[in-house]
Amino acid sequence: MPRGFFITFEGLDGSGKTTQLRRLATSLAAEGHHVVTLRQPGGTALGDRIRGVLLDSRSEASLGPIDPIAELTLMFADRAQAIAEVIQPALAAGSIVLCDRFTDSSEAYQGGGRQLGSDRVLALHTAVCGTLQPDLTLLLLPPLEASLARARRRNHRNTQTHGTDENRFERESDEFYGRIHNAYRRIAEREPTRVITIAENHTIEEIEKIIHQIVAQQLPATLPTSQASTLEA
Amino acid sequence: MPRGFFITFEGLDGSGKTTQLRRLATSLAAEGHHVVTLRQPGGTALGDRIRGVLLDSRSEASLGPIDPIAELTLMFADRAQAIAEVIQPALAAGSIVLCDRFTDSSEAYQGGGRQLGSDRVLALHTAVCGTLQPDLTLLLLPPLEASLARARRRNHRNTQTHGTDENRFERESDEFYGRIHNAYRRIAEREPTRVITIAENHTIEEIEKIIHQIVAQQLPATLPTSQASTLEA
Repeated sequence: MPRGFFITFEGLDGSGKTTQLRRLATSLAAEGHHVVTLRQPGGTALGDRIRGVLLDSRSEASLGPIDPIAELTLMFADRAQAIAEVIQPALAAGSIVLCDRFTDSSEAYQGGGRQLGSDRVLALHTAVCGTLQPDLTLLLLPPLEASLARARRRNHRNTQTHGTDENRFERESDEFYGRIHNAYRRIAEREPTRVITIAENHTIEEIEKIIHQIVAQQLPATLPTSQASTLEA
Repeated sequence: MPRGFFITFEGLDGSGKTTQLRRLATSLAAEGHHVVTLRQPGGTALGDRIRGVLLDSRSEASLGPIDPIAELTLMFADRAQAIAEVIQPALAAGSIVLCDRFTDSSEAYQGGGRQLGSDRVLALHTAVCGTLQPDLTLLLLPPLEASLARARRRNHRNTQTHGTDENRFERESDEFYGRIHNAYRRIAEREPTRVITIAENHTIEEIEKIIHQIVAQQLPATLPTSQASTLEA
């Protein structure tokens, strides 16, 4: 049975992971690989509904405060649908799957940031996702101070542009970001084979080059390719 | 710290558990107990949104088929919110909580009916709900043949009245109901202290009397009561 390659992008908001994911998708597709991209939460019809509930819980007073464990569990419901509907079929077809956030985000944000603990998140992963793990995780984690400065700039810009505070995570305190940063570092230390950390401040082009080298080394030679490039988003 | 008493009602659709829950709530409130009732899924603002997503996934083609594990995980997200927002505060205040379906329903319907297995459901329960268990579960489980006949009558009536097929579970096959029935029986055998099965065909009034006797025997004498009855739904 053909088996593709599952790559996840992780990092704080504003780390540039979404930009890097898109660039990698474009270059892999240009090389003839079958590439499927998705983001979490979201990426399926059910996931988009769940994402809407999560966003409403942050903006609509009528929904009331969402319990952190309920929020975490909703993230995993979204993940279950993404696995069944997108990730597993794509991997079975030999595609390269690029996913913007996966269980490491739950462990960093809810486990670390909201202090629910890694054990609970990993137990949920096993119960919901079984043994599925990314083959490679690219963790964009500049030093905490640089990340905080970038998040504050983004925050300021978003408030100016939209006048909204849609993204709750970006309004959180520096301590919250510090806990997320620490949780990501612990994941990378625990699983050094799977998780590659890009920790220095590089330009977007430098990071793109580094990522391309890492992926080129790790992609199995047996992956199906075609002349006609395929990019599904 | 005062601690209330947590009673769940379980059984197949059409078993009469919702009627019995309401009657028990009324009589306990008349005796001066603080009673809080809720149903699952639903019972909180977030839970009603989740319930809406579940119902839409059964009727809206645009949502596509929901993955059984995603459905199960959504049920637990709803449960986490109900525990944090309703059940734990009520128990901490010394109330009697009557809940229409809880984790046993997930084990019977998704674990048994959808064949996801009890282990996965119980692992999710531990990850999401921790050690919380009902103090008493009233399982209304007439013989399978009687349950099937009742479900078919309900089904027929609903189709005639509404012309809809909103409740997917009621459209399922007899084999599906048989697996749910079996799963409920195994739960009752595994936890005979917590789960009391009312298995014979009785009238509504007879079952009401049986339930009242069981509850009267098991309620802790230390529960707070008041002259003014309290019934929150």
